[in-house]
Amino acid sequence: MNETLKTLLEHRTIRQYKPDPVPEDVLNTILEAGIKASTSGNMQVYSIIVTREPARKEVLHKLHFSQQMVLDAPVLLTFCADFNRFNTWCRLRDAKPGYDNFLSFFTAAIDALLAAQNCAVAAEAFGLGICYLGTTTYQAGKLVEFFNLPDGVVPVTTLVLGYPASDPGPTDRLPAEAAVHQETYVPWTEERINKVYAEKENLPGTFKLLEENQLENLAKIFTEKRYTLKDNLYFSEVLLNVLKNQGFMNNP
Amino acid sequence: MNETLKTLLEHRTIRQYKPDPVPEDVLNTILEAGIKASTSGNMQVYSIIVTREPARKEVLHKLHFSQQMVLDAPVLLTFCADFNRFNTWCRLRDAKPGYDNFLSFFTAAIDALLAAQNCAVAAEAFGLGICYLGTTTYQAGKLVEFFNLPDGVVPVTTLVLGYPASDPGPTDRLPAEAAVHQETYVPWTEERINKVYAEKENLPGTFKLLEENQLENLAKIFTEKRYTLKDNLYFSEVLLNVLKNQGFMNNP
Repeated sequence: MNETLKTLLEHRTIRQYKPDPVPEDVLNTILEAGIKASTSGNMQVYSIIVTREPARKEVLHKLHFSQQMVLDAPVLLTFCADFNRFNTWCRLRDAKPGYDNFLSFFTAAIDALLAAQNCAVAAEAFGLGICYLGTTTYQAGKLVEFFNLPDGVVPVTTLVLGYPASDPGPTDRLPAEAAVHQETYVPWTEERINKVYAEKENLPGTFKLLEENQLENLAKIFTEKRYTLKDNLYFSEVLLNVLKNQGFMNNP
Repeated sequence: MNETLKTLLEHRTIRQYKPDPVPEDVLNTILEAGIKASTSGNMQVYSIIVTREPARKEVLHKLHFSQQMVLDAPVLLTFCADFNRFNTWCRLRDAKPGYDNFLSFFTAAIDALLAAQNCAVAAEAFGLGICYLGTTTYQAGKLVEFFNLPDGVVPVTTLVLGYPASDPGPTDRLPAEAAVHQETYVPWTEERINKVYAEKENLPGTFKLLEENQLENLAKIFTEKRYTLKDNLYFSEVLLNVLKNQGFMNNP
């Protein structure tokens, strides 16, 4: 099989890293691959902040809910929706930027996320492991402070990169029919839900998780432990405030 | 060079397509690559809607501002932030989903966008061309109607796929220093802006564009023609209303 497809299809999440540094030329090629990703109107309204200094990783480790891999992995890439450079350019050219609104934030977030996934694929092509940090959106306000991000810049995701210290194998995924709809969206019935979740609900790891958490099914692990309504409401407010404070909500 | 890196670094946007269909097994592998992308908490809160029927492409062509490639390319993939399947699963398992808020929308949008970029890279590995349709967010409300999307589903981007009928060469990009910051965010000065935009502002295509539009610089092409404040405010309101109507804004 084509090597690119192999890289994509064999993706696995790495949470344990060797301390070996990522060579400078490897990192630069990974970043170059990110920059080649599609970008809205070729505006490139994103930025990538590289963190390698151990003292700075220690602060990020705390901000990202003390996940050990943030300390262990040699490189963190924080991807930001970023209209600051573009707006600065416009103002210097006597053009009036109109990018202080929600649509512009979302456009910039798309740019940042496509670049992030290209960096992830490039890293894996070099034999590196990767993991995304979902804590980036929860802690967006604190990351704005830490990186001293100006108006028009909001962190949207973080990639942890480094040489794998474990080989966990590919993560399980639902069958394709759980994600793919042909022509029209097919509404979910109990029968189809049971079918697409059957394998996942019967994995040995699932039973272990239920035992550990004393809960009767996997859905409750998500709603009661991992992603609760209370946390989601709190972090929704935090994230919307960050958008407002960074100048992205001047719209009706 | 490693073939995966070659695929990533040689990306170009294709806007002209041959009518040749994409073989079923090729399309399925592209979708499989999308599904292998990282996903928040392995929730897979996205969906991919495949459009191939000519009559349906004609409607999408109009919805996507009559861009010719929507008619010409054999396949369109619409990527949606999608908590509907997950919420249905939770309710069937007597678990109470708390995903009707902005954070959950954004989490699902990240999932959808990482999957989209994996599909884009996989398509290019098969020799197909791709183009993203930024009109997806502008027309999200009309796409919700067209695809009959239920609560918890919002389209966030669209990929056009097919065999290239032209070879435009790689799109120009700003130098890496325009997007990459080491350790801290380096504020933009006039000197650095002039430096990173110099090449782009002096491309032959840029002078042609200024002539055609009778404008004095490239920044004004963006602010006065392509992405105006008026349009951005209008489409911000549209997109936020779609989030509300699809049940993603029940937060403070």
